[in-house]
Amino acid sequence: MNSSFKEALITIVGKENVDDSTAGRLVYSYDATPGFQSMPDAVVSPRNTKEVAEIVILCNKHQIPLVPRGSGTNLCAGTCPTQGGIVLLFHHMNRILELDKENLTVTVQPGVITLDVMKTVEAHGLFYPPDPSSMTISTIGGNINENSGGLRGLKYGVTRDYVLALEVVLPNGDIIRTGGKLAKDVAGYDLTRLFVGSEGTIGIITEATLKLIPKPETKKTMLALYQDMEAAARSVSAIIANKIIPATVEFLDQPTLQAVEDFAKIGLPTNVKAILLIEQDGPAAIVERDMNSIATICREEQAEAVDIAKNEQEAHALTTARRSALSALARLKPTTILEDATVPRSEIAAMVKAINEIAKKHQITICTFGHAGDGNLHPTCPTDARDEDEMKRVEAAFSEIFAKAIELGGTITGEHGVGEMKAPYLEWKLGKEGIAAMKALKQSFDPNNIMNPGKIFAKDSRKRVVVTR
Amino acid sequence: MNSSFKEALITIVGKENVDDSTAGRLVYSYDATPGFQSMPDAVVSPRNTKEVAEIVILCNKHQIPLVPRGSGTNLCAGTCPTQGGIVLLFHHMNRILELDKENLTVTVQPGVITLDVMKTVEAHGLFYPPDPSSMTISTIGGNINENSGGLRGLKYGVTRDYVLALEVVLPNGDIIRTGGKLAKDVAGYDLTRLFVGSEGTIGIITEATLKLIPKPETKKTMLALYQDMEAAARSVSAIIANKIIPATVEFLDQPTLQAVEDFAKIGLPTNVKAILLIEQDGPAAIVERDMNSIATICREEQAEAVDIAKNEQEAHALTTARRSALSALARLKPTTILEDATVPRSEIAAMVKAINEIAKKHQITICTFGHAGDGNLHPTCPTDARDEDEMKRVEAAFSEIFAKAIELGGTITGEHGVGEMKAPYLEWKLGKEGIAAMKALKQSFDPNNIMNPGKIFAKDSRKRVVVTR
Repeated sequence: MNSSFKEALITIVGKENVDDSTAGRLVYSYDATPGFQSMPDAVVSPRNTKEVAEIVILCNKHQIPLVPRGSGTNLCAGTCPTQGGIVLLFHHMNRILELDKENLTVTVQPGVITLDVMKTVEAHGLFYPPDPSSMTISTIGGNINENSGGLRGLKYGVTRDYVLALEVVLPNGDIIRTGGKLAKDVAGYDLTRLFVGSEGTIGIITEATLKLIPKPETKKTMLALYQDMEAAARSVSAIIANKIIPATVEFLDQPTLQAVEDFAKIGLPTNVKAILLIEQDGPAAIVERDMNSIATICREEQAEAVDIAKNEQEAHALTTARRSALSALARLKPTTILEDATVPRSEIAAMVKAINEIAKKHQITICTFGHAGDGNLHPTCPTDARDEDEMKRVEAAFSEIFAKAIELGGTITGEHGVGEMKAPYLEWKLGKEGIAAMKALKQSFDPNNIMNPGKIFAKDSRKRVVVTR
Repeated sequence: MNSSFKEALITIVGKENVDDSTAGRLVYSYDATPGFQSMPDAVVSPRNTKEVAEIVILCNKHQIPLVPRGSGTNLCAGTCPTQGGIVLLFHHMNRILELDKENLTVTVQPGVITLDVMKTVEAHGLFYPPDPSSMTISTIGGNINENSGGLRGLKYGVTRDYVLALEVVLPNGDIIRTGGKLAKDVAGYDLTRLFVGSEGTIGIITEATLKLIPKPETKKTMLALYQDMEAAARSVSAIIANKIIPATVEFLDQPTLQAVEDFAKIGLPTNVKAILLIEQDGPAAIVERDMNSIATICREEQAEAVDIAKNEQEAHALTTARRSALSALARLKPTTILEDATVPRSEIAAMVKAINEIAKKHQITICTFGHAGDGNLHPTCPTDARDEDEMKRVEAAFSEIFAKAIELGGTITGEHGVGEMKAPYLEWKLGKEGIAAMKALKQSFDPNNIMNPGKIFAKDSRKRVVVTR
């Protein structure tokens, strides 16, 4: 970064909002994804949309990469500045601008913390459902860029389903507004949903209007314990085949359970092969009825025990423990690789079985947990990045896991995004033709490829492995 | 169309599936939109995806426009072949391919009739919510291309919210598959939702996998009668502010009521200024509770009367009557212009008031009905296309209506699409910058502009009128 470029940045955002110190850059040289680190040239904190647009125009002129970043909790190296350039922070743009109780919307800046939005709207009896496990520190801007999922995806959908309108700075510096406080809007292409999950590669989100729903009146939480992983998977299918859509159906295998219990110490059973953590919400009578039906179904499918949480504290402890799974597993080894291969719900048992076989074949440990109702699994490998031989086996194993997910009608990523980490595998899901269409789209928005370059699209695709079982 | 091109088409689909007779072309020279008619060069009926791809490659080579068409029920001249070329029909591709009860999906070809999908899945206790008024004859392919809405949008969303996966033939002839039977999938840009509502301008949909939900257990229907249109609008806001989301909240003004009653003869009240037709579905106890609360709220907001339908027959008669509003109004005059300006729910009263003032100012009749819960109104003008002077006034009035909708935070089209009809107004909603972004996107998919050319993008934008009241 030459001094005239730096001066130009300072002119836009002020000296205190441009950091090119080694320490400052080091902090933003990585995100939550292991194995990726690269120094940015500077870390810049715009204070408003106009400043963002001016930075974009400047970077476009000088062809300097721009990497928008929320809290960096993503797991796909989506915010690692792998080609240098500017990391953009949004801590000055972190306000809740409006809560509209008549239209059931909340309008926010990108830097607001997800949990703050949730708490604010819940205080008014409203509900913002998307609940990524990182929600206590993640930002709405990051959630939108990654189309974050969470535990409530089965019943309530993901971030995409709650974004009604956006203000976006395009790569050419134009500021556009998409959508509105509207349940229906078909005025041209659906740019709103196109920007959701676009990983900062086609524009910078500077404001969002989110859809809210009434807060569910009550909630109940249940644990179902299994000595047979496939019985747990069958229970999930049976619940839904019985026309019950729970708010949450989480799956944890025994190694994950052990790690979580060691971490959270709330008395989780560790002598079973798998558990389902099931939540239903809604009017009390319906929740009661659904929970009874679900308990019956789980018992019919050979659940060893079914326990309904006695009170809110116990329920909260259970879901908090589940949300801590990544932190708990991260204590086991120096490096934790967590993936999110996703399959149709009917294929969960086949997928978990394949994951266990693949781990065994490559002599690595994989703990699996995840959103069983969505088919969205998190096979997680506690490993050590310094052990080159093991890392090769880990990579080979995850390649086979991705291939298996696709073979079962699934995808390489359900909620974490592609980023730099999964870019080499994207062609397996989309084919050369799908990649070509997406590349043309990216090019149409960002011809100079300054927006988070290196993400989504890889220089080379990984050769498709043959799954041997 | 020269003879070698015609021969090439015949080689692909067979002689019986290429119609270039005058009668055959005349039938597909218009759709449900008044004022637009243009002869295609031929009408072609492919039998499978491979044939669609071959037709696309042929048309691309010869730069012949391609207009995919379902049943032509759209109201934006979206399927009128205004630049000639080939109208593509999908009556050979009209099968329901798979109902997956475990993953709650149905996979269909584009030519299947919407109501057939609904009936098929409902027979298995499942539910496909999007219910455009044209559903008895519209096709799923048309619904996807237009992102069709309907009466249940408030609670259940629109077509976009139920499309999980697509097979699409791109303008270059590539066949791609997007998405999957997956609740979560973030593998690259969300092409699935980009194609929904893209009006056949960036690809041809040849297969779709739709999300289903369990069929609501029960349903109740209510009429609330008002002598004051604003009281009706206030009731809608009050219901939702009370955290009740009904399945349907329809609004009909007095002139619409009169026309519908004359048409349907089911004893609708015609001596009131407005009615709300409200439906709630779900478990019986909750429906009962919600309907009682809604009735109380409507009475508090000065409803003259609130009547709950006594049985399913009566409820069905009411919703069928509402669905017939366009047909009923179409009997009044030779030409019926029905629009779908949409505003935030909180602005319905202001919008209806403005519509009535604009109609009065321009000395035309406008009857208004629509989806009040969505802010999605259908101001409808019974007129006569042969009366040039009146048509000018009609056009001026609708320009003011669009401008007013945008002024109130709304959009020029909630569920009908842009097509050729509303293309000149799109810039009012999106700005020059938004149009430029969409044009670049279109260009990236379809550089030769063969896919439904002339739709969405107008040669010239209409000058923004100043709303005078």
